[in-house]
Amino acid sequence: MLEKINYKKFIFPLVVGVILWFLAPIRPAGVDLAAWRMLAIFVATIIGCVTKPLPIGAVAIVGFAITVMTGEVKIDDAVAGFGNSSIWLIVMAFFISRGFIKTGLGKRIALVFVKIFGKKTLGLMYSLIGVDLILAPATPSNTARAGGIMFPIINSLSHSFGSKPEDHTERKIGSFLTFGEFHGNTITSAMFMTAMAANPLAQSLAKSVHVNLTWMDWFIAALVPGIFSLIVVPFLIYKMYPPEIKETPNAAAWSKERLSKMGVMKPAEKWMAVIFVLALILWVLGSTLQIDATLTAFIALALLLLTGVLNWNDILQEKGAWNTLTWFSILVMMANELNELGFIPWLSNFISDDLHGLSWPIVLVILILFYFYSHYLFASATAHVSAMYTALLGVAIDAGVPPILAALMLGFFGNLFASTTNYSDGPAPILFSSGYVSQLDWWRLNGILGVFYIVSWLILGSLWMKICGFY
Amino acid sequence: MLEKINYKKFIFPLVVGVILWFLAPIRPAGVDLAAWRMLAIFVATIIGCVTKPLPIGAVAIVGFAITVMTGEVKIDDAVAGFGNSSIWLIVMAFFISRGFIKTGLGKRIALVFVKIFGKKTLGLMYSLIGVDLILAPATPSNTARAGGIMFPIINSLSHSFGSKPEDHTERKIGSFLTFGEFHGNTITSAMFMTAMAANPLAQSLAKSVHVNLTWMDWFIAALVPGIFSLIVVPFLIYKMYPPEIKETPNAAAWSKERLSKMGVMKPAEKWMAVIFVLALILWVLGSTLQIDATLTAFIALALLLLTGVLNWNDILQEKGAWNTLTWFSILVMMANELNELGFIPWLSNFISDDLHGLSWPIVLVILILFYFYSHYLFASATAHVSAMYTALLGVAIDAGVPPILAALMLGFFGNLFASTTNYSDGPAPILFSSGYVSQLDWWRLNGILGVFYIVSWLILGSLWMKICGFY
Repeated sequence: MLEKINYKKFIFPLVVGVILWFLAPIRPAGVDLAAWRMLAIFVATIIGCVTKPLPIGAVAIVGFAITVMTGEVKIDDAVAGFGNSSIWLIVMAFFISRGFIKTGLGKRIALVFVKIFGKKTLGLMYSLIGVDLILAPATPSNTARAGGIMFPIINSLSHSFGSKPEDHTERKIGSFLTFGEFHGNTITSAMFMTAMAANPLAQSLAKSVHVNLTWMDWFIAALVPGIFSLIVVPFLIYKMYPPEIKETPNAAAWSKERLSKMGVMKPAEKWMAVIFVLALILWVLGSTLQIDATLTAFIALALLLLTGVLNWNDILQEKGAWNTLTWFSILVMMANELNELGFIPWLSNFISDDLHGLSWPIVLVILILFYFYSHYLFASATAHVSAMYTALLGVAIDAGVPPILAALMLGFFGNLFASTTNYSDGPAPILFSSGYVSQLDWWRLNGILGVFYIVSWLILGSLWMKICGFY
Repeated sequence: MLEKINYKKFIFPLVVGVILWFLAPIRPAGVDLAAWRMLAIFVATIIGCVTKPLPIGAVAIVGFAITVMTGEVKIDDAVAGFGNSSIWLIVMAFFISRGFIKTGLGKRIALVFVKIFGKKTLGLMYSLIGVDLILAPATPSNTARAGGIMFPIINSLSHSFGSKPEDHTERKIGSFLTFGEFHGNTITSAMFMTAMAANPLAQSLAKSVHVNLTWMDWFIAALVPGIFSLIVVPFLIYKMYPPEIKETPNAAAWSKERLSKMGVMKPAEKWMAVIFVLALILWVLGSTLQIDATLTAFIALALLLLTGVLNWNDILQEKGAWNTLTWFSILVMMANELNELGFIPWLSNFISDDLHGLSWPIVLVILILFYFYSHYLFASATAHVSAMYTALLGVAIDAGVPPILAALMLGFFGNLFASTTNYSDGPAPILFSSGYVSQLDWWRLNGILGVFYIVSWLILGSLWMKICGFY
């Protein structure tokens, strides 16, 4: 049986790609033919990742085949893209986060938080976000974190408070918790290099223009605006989109019951906890001890396998990891080639000229606004980061923005721009399709919170990084 | 729940590795400390792949972590091993062979062969091996070919002739077909660079000592000894290990019935056939048209996805591909580092000195005998090839064996040495554990056929390659 494919969805990427390809003769001076053709293929692939005639991985494979077939990139160089250290960090962390789910440690942590902090609805929300925050540094799939660990808990919590979309009781508590978790997850994603798949990508793209970001740089720089957002945003949502149930005296009992059902910590959970803390320590001290973050992730996986927390089959059936490895490596390879073939440097110069004479703070604001609002056109944070990060960073540096400030700020907004649509990143469609939040509310509230992120992270973030001596 | 792990099985690799590691101070002059330590880790990892305290992939991950942790290889270089073009050829071909299984085309081809050629048992055997031969160029997992496509057919054929191990009727026909397929598969694996996972590995290792093998070189050189073996070996098995049923007048009817049940070729099968033939053509003409074999495989996969023969989920759940990618890339990376750090060149010189003064044909024979019979110690053809191929090729070249002859001959025997044990490569344990062939018969018959392969491939192969002007 042939798979059903909606071939109409190929039209848009194909037409754009073909037009760009054949516009080569009138391409701007200073752009090589190979660079221009790479652009045509890249743009078509990115559009294909948005219109999705096939899943993103399959689109990437097609783009890969065309790139090499038409001679833009040699096969050995193209395949070398699968050996990218940043991407294997993500792959490894997918496996590590499987340990949280398999052992039940993730669930236990959540239940403990609810038990301790969950007397009022707002406290419950903070406690849930606290769980997300704890898991974030080791869970670069924010989708796995929101969808795999947090959502099942939020769903069963809401049900236990009699809040279900099918009964039109979603506003009792479920809407608030679901939307709050979406934002908590977005903020925690922005706070750690290892908390979202596109963050190490940003690091790797920054390196290609000679800006080195360590895990610790990212963490320190994001600390103050991150904590500020984690405190303020749930409260803003509580005010703008209040739950009908404000007190949750039963939550403690609810989680107590579930915890007693879970019994004492099992050896697998204990090993998971020990190995996770070890990984966390190595990630934090990595730049001091000269231990690479990817190596730390490999060590953690080796320990999880050696202790028997995970078996090899858990690894092989972790489809998310293999999926990410494939499409992500290909997009990064293409974005890198676009840079190496000279298109990105040309584009940066071109925009720089337009922004000429403006002071760098204004340039930074313009770039962040452009980056943020163009996300309405993207169905994947990663696709957007790979498409624009390098070019915008180049423009920023040319305009005199301190390189590390620009690199980190663009890194943060590669997460924060999720505050736009219901297809903005991985967690969005999962949490949205639960039905707790209407599309209108989702777009409206995200619109408001988006402004909050832009203002607070630009001002507070720049100030804090200045104080820390980043620039 | 923690996985059960037999920790005793760590003792042997660990003890050998640790002893080697601490013998570093008395290592031979001319071997760097890093090279020696890499050797200790590599040997321990290979032994671990044989004793299997954990599946081979998990052992490789542990070896990887230790290699980088102890500073033998930098993390970026180690991870770059996952971007190896030869390995992605295998990964892609796993996906392509999934198309044969999913569409039923593999089964249909087998049934047609049986219908046409299957009047006598020996004819049936040849026809089954013919199917294996046709699939071989596009199925680098010889395990998938033998276990996924051929074995289910042989099993149901045998049952339909009333031959079952549990009834002690295995010698009726099942034993003959099973053992014959094992050898057919071994020979077809040796005939095409893309017919067994370790072949592109051999190609890649040969490249590291500046011997370039194309798909077409391999095919031409193996053609005559391959066809000769395909004709003679089934006949030898028929004489040494005869089936009780010599005539199979029902086989045609049996396959006809199954074919009529399958109905006419479905669109998915047709697309599969067209894309497979296209890939075959590109593989054959690749060196003429300057189309790399890995690129061909990517194109074929892209077409299978675009036509809807495969969906993206088929790819993600193809565990064999991801498993092979992981452990294989790591072993190859280690074997390459052993070479680059200088151990393999030193070893080659060392053995060369011992073989000094011998004429090159004698050196070639000694090396092949050593390579073949040391396979009793290996549970994986690939592990054995990665461990020894480069060193033996280096020795051969130093001793004056024409490089291309040595590279191809070692390449062929990296398949033919499967004619040893019931754990010699992937297909062996699958076909053996069906119960049709006793362990004694398996070892005894393989011992005899092993001698046949050594004699015929060395003599016929060398002559044929001379005639073709390879050297």
